[in-house]
Amino acid sequence: MRFLDRTLTPSDIKSLSIDDLEVLSHEIREMIISTVLKTGGHLASSLGAVELAVALHYVFDSPADRIIWDVGHQAYAHKIITGRMDKFHTLRQLNGISGFPHVSESVHDAITVGHSSTSISAGLGMSAAKCLKNDPANVICVIGDGSMTAGMSFEALNHAGDSKKRLIVILNDNEMSISPNVGALSSFLSRKLSGKYFQELRKEFGEFLKSLPKIGDDIYKFAKRSEESFKTFVTPGMLFEALNFDYFGPINGHKLSHLVNILNNIKNLEGPILLHVTTKKGKGYRPAEENPTAFHGVAPSTTEKTNNFPTYTKIFGSTLCQMAENNEKITAITAAMPDGTGLLEFQSKFPKRFFDVGIAEQHAVTFSAGLSIEGFTPFVAIYSTFLQRAYDQVIHDVCLDGHHVIFAMDRGGIVGEDGPTHHGAFDLSYLRPIPNITIMAPSSGDELVRMLKTAESMDSPVAIRYPRGNSEKEDFISYDKAEAISPLNADLLKNGEDILIIAIGSMVNPAKKACQMLEEKGFSPSLIDARFVKPLDEKMICSMAENISNIITIEENALIGGFGSAVLELFAEKGIGSKNIIRMGIKDEFVTQGTPEELKNLFDLNPEGILKNALKLLNNDK
Amino acid sequence: MRFLDRTLTPSDIKSLSIDDLEVLSHEIREMIISTVLKTGGHLASSLGAVELAVALHYVFDSPADRIIWDVGHQAYAHKIITGRMDKFHTLRQLNGISGFPHVSESVHDAITVGHSSTSISAGLGMSAAKCLKNDPANVICVIGDGSMTAGMSFEALNHAGDSKKRLIVILNDNEMSISPNVGALSSFLSRKLSGKYFQELRKEFGEFLKSLPKIGDDIYKFAKRSEESFKTFVTPGMLFEALNFDYFGPINGHKLSHLVNILNNIKNLEGPILLHVTTKKGKGYRPAEENPTAFHGVAPSTTEKTNNFPTYTKIFGSTLCQMAENNEKITAITAAMPDGTGLLEFQSKFPKRFFDVGIAEQHAVTFSAGLSIEGFTPFVAIYSTFLQRAYDQVIHDVCLDGHHVIFAMDRGGIVGEDGPTHHGAFDLSYLRPIPNITIMAPSSGDELVRMLKTAESMDSPVAIRYPRGNSEKEDFISYDKAEAISPLNADLLKNGEDILIIAIGSMVNPAKKACQMLEEKGFSPSLIDARFVKPLDEKMICSMAENISNIITIEENALIGGFGSAVLELFAEKGIGSKNIIRMGIKDEFVTQGTPEELKNLFDLNPEGILKNALKLLNNDK
Repeated sequence: MRFLDRTLTPSDIKSLSIDDLEVLSHEIREMIISTVLKTGGHLASSLGAVELAVALHYVFDSPADRIIWDVGHQAYAHKIITGRMDKFHTLRQLNGISGFPHVSESVHDAITVGHSSTSISAGLGMSAAKCLKNDPANVICVIGDGSMTAGMSFEALNHAGDSKKRLIVILNDNEMSISPNVGALSSFLSRKLSGKYFQELRKEFGEFLKSLPKIGDDIYKFAKRSEESFKTFVTPGMLFEALNFDYFGPINGHKLSHLVNILNNIKNLEGPILLHVTTKKGKGYRPAEENPTAFHGVAPSTTEKTNNFPTYTKIFGSTLCQMAENNEKITAITAAMPDGTGLLEFQSKFPKRFFDVGIAEQHAVTFSAGLSIEGFTPFVAIYSTFLQRAYDQVIHDVCLDGHHVIFAMDRGGIVGEDGPTHHGAFDLSYLRPIPNITIMAPSSGDELVRMLKTAESMDSPVAIRYPRGNSEKEDFISYDKAEAISPLNADLLKNGEDILIIAIGSMVNPAKKACQMLEEKGFSPSLIDARFVKPLDEKMICSMAENISNIITIEENALIGGFGSAVLELFAEKGIGSKNIIRMGIKDEFVTQGTPEELKNLFDLNPEGILKNALKLLNNDK
Repeated sequence: MRFLDRTLTPSDIKSLSIDDLEVLSHEIREMIISTVLKTGGHLASSLGAVELAVALHYVFDSPADRIIWDVGHQAYAHKIITGRMDKFHTLRQLNGISGFPHVSESVHDAITVGHSSTSISAGLGMSAAKCLKNDPANVICVIGDGSMTAGMSFEALNHAGDSKKRLIVILNDNEMSISPNVGALSSFLSRKLSGKYFQELRKEFGEFLKSLPKIGDDIYKFAKRSEESFKTFVTPGMLFEALNFDYFGPINGHKLSHLVNILNNIKNLEGPILLHVTTKKGKGYRPAEENPTAFHGVAPSTTEKTNNFPTYTKIFGSTLCQMAENNEKITAITAAMPDGTGLLEFQSKFPKRFFDVGIAEQHAVTFSAGLSIEGFTPFVAIYSTFLQRAYDQVIHDVCLDGHHVIFAMDRGGIVGEDGPTHHGAFDLSYLRPIPNITIMAPSSGDELVRMLKTAESMDSPVAIRYPRGNSEKEDFISYDKAEAISPLNADLLKNGEDILIIAIGSMVNPAKKACQMLEEKGFSPSLIDARFVKPLDEKMICSMAENISNIITIEENALIGGFGSAVLELFAEKGIGSKNIIRMGIKDEFVTQGTPEELKNLFDLNPEGILKNALKLLNNDK
């Protein structure tokens, strides 16, 4: 190592030659590969942005100049050259450095990110502020072509083009986002444009030339030959120019000399600028170059697999395929995550009934409402944290009319290493107030199958919320053998006398174990698997609560407004006193990163934690 | 009246001549004007779309063909010719017909709407479904140029262009949305495009022609003359063509013969089509044509103004101006509603610190985070119902890092005649689970001023939620004289013994009146104005609740997860029993339309309702 033998800061690299920058980039790439293969992380994206990060810090002066990484999963090189090399091995670990830019970590991280398509909005805000302060520093947003398809990016481009503020947007075009890119913009960027309009523009141009007396034909031939160059000339920048951006590029994002050159040229220009850079995901690591989707997120090598039981994601995807065999109305929708949400099998078996809408959660939800209106049964497969993007659409377009749209909400609860931007900590709270929706959370793989079947049999909006990770046994019930849950009742797992534990979803299993421990200590616990957050099984919960005064509710969701609050609301309504109730769940804070187990331990969301709280109630009782 | 002497349905008009359609359109326009001036409603938009509605129902076969009106405030003519003429006089009234398309009202209303920019998504979903069913019917989305600026529209266009499904999008371009339009797209549509790129495209074209031996100059002159036509040719459709739409237009949207002609032509084409129609807001009613913003929403003539006291909107706008005089860091952001949110004065006094980002709530919020990062104090003025569009941005971009962004949330609670899509019924519930945010709700105009000052003095995210309508007295405290609330405590308005009423925001005044009534009946009530939903003034609320067992909480928000639930959570945490608690608020349903008073009465949200519930508790107590 010539450069990474000590921790670098941006000022260290400004004196280097372009050749040195090449060497540095190589070293950074080696460090990213060796680290991420150990720790896990977003490998392919970060490998694609090494030269870009180096060039940006070489040409610009962060933090005076603001460099904003959209999503932030491509910012590992940025982290390494902004003073975090020595901590890079703690990537994504509890108390380690984040897999995304995070303001608490470095002044060079302008804003904390994790979700897609926020960079141009945040950058334009900073630019507007700098304009008010007469601060001539630059604001640079680096955004992938996938992130560009989200509506929020368009809103920001539209405002930027109108405001004429100084802003540099770097389109990091690797011709795919997480999965191969979707949408008209994508084919536009990949220059496969062949719309009638352009054909006609060329044709008309040709006709015009031919119409000129005598000389027409020659020019026409000339024009015909230059058709390809005309096409190249017209297409890539047009969209952005139409929005008042000055367009530069496309340039090769792995050529440092070109990057440095053009960044220096655009550095002090006025108005909004779009620099189109083409890069290769996984660059420099052959397996990732060849299969960037597989290397988008890499699991840590050190993970001890506790089991190989099927994940909830897998059970969802497999069951949906079985369902679709029997029911031609079943459709599946994803916002750019067919793999992550378990829909690859569905996509290959039922391509016509599968819709990948790109990174566009708002559209995904309302598009599904449209499918439902025409009699189909759409399953929107989406991570809990990303459904936040479509909250208004869930309310306004699905639930108001009561359309039969089913939200298969993966990654409900704590997700682990991706940290605060990615936990599905709020869904039970934000969905509960919406009228007409049914909210379920399975306690096992089999329960997920039953709930999918239940949701299919209904005729109103449903959310099924399940966690990241493996289910509890090797197999799961087949769709054919599963029975829909009707009526929507809870499941009384234990009927004891001393304490009542009402658990939902992923917390039912730890509660079972806690009950065993309580029994070993001579107590007689009751345990309800609530199954439904809305509507609650009022009859069962109230009849149990009327006879047992010590109550614990437990959920992998924010305590504020969540499942436990639903129980409190029920008790208040029914006049059931609730002095001895402990609600367990996620406290009022953004949950940090770490393994799911480590993070659940922070909130006592484990058998021992439940036991501790149960004993607290039982001892008070004496 | 030749045609509107009886209730029309779409089939009635199919046999008419174009001349008859003109007469019909005239009659519809007269009916809209005379009705809306009485009932109130969205006048200007609906007058602009009369011929379009007539032509669409003439050419297409609703409901087999789906006609989707974006936002839906332009759909009055559609209502009149789809069987609702006889009920049109009940527009926006309790049990009357809705001001927007509503599925419960007519099979011709394909989806219930009210919020902007959902039509293309819903329409594409229907189109995809029709494609699966081999149903050759058409799907037509009518969307204004303002609605086109929202990211959701772009997401849908992008997907539509890629999917190549049959879909007709009619861009109803009146060169303004609610307020004059904002954004690069707007100037693009208004054909004022003058970007460098196009200048260079023309220049290069010229150079190329000149470079040809001998004959170059002549052609160059020819090309020069045709520059304007070239420009017209290149610009308006380009954006849509770039997204794979076939573009037609622009055509005059008030010429029935042209409309019918082109609709017939595009009716059976394949793939996504964009028809660009130019219309005039307020068409046919001079005052509305001249001032369409003023005639966007018209108040009913029959409204008996109970008072002329300043509205909360006005108090917010005026106070923010006073604040900005003293504090140069104050900035104001609106998503296309400078008038509706009370920012016109701010806009004219502090134009540089005022940002209208267009209909783009997501961008508005993250843009504000950017301003805050650079040291400014942004006030995002937004209606409660529209902040739902930016839920993820509030969580991910503002609250996660704890940025000092202040949400001035107007229209919190029941808004009245706009109905279920517009009530701000959910905000307390969906904001509460978010860490780091402070949530306030003023009980009076003076309290709003104090809360604005309090929010200014803080350094973290704040939401101030206030209702539509007038405050309680003629004047309000000036910013200079107001004191910030510190610490964030509640206000004990009455200290009695029999019952404790804990009220928030708009419900404090009815609670005061209920207390008077209780006192007249010989009871001794306590009353707390909670002021803060988060954090609750735990000390005051608990110390009162420990001594009084009968408790009422009251809020103008969903009961699920709202203010009353916060009180329940507090009691559970502190081991305060809550057998005798009644939570008053909005039940688990979408609230219909009507006057605010009528709607509040549905939920007992008035002094008499509070008295009734209080007596229920007090009588049980005996």
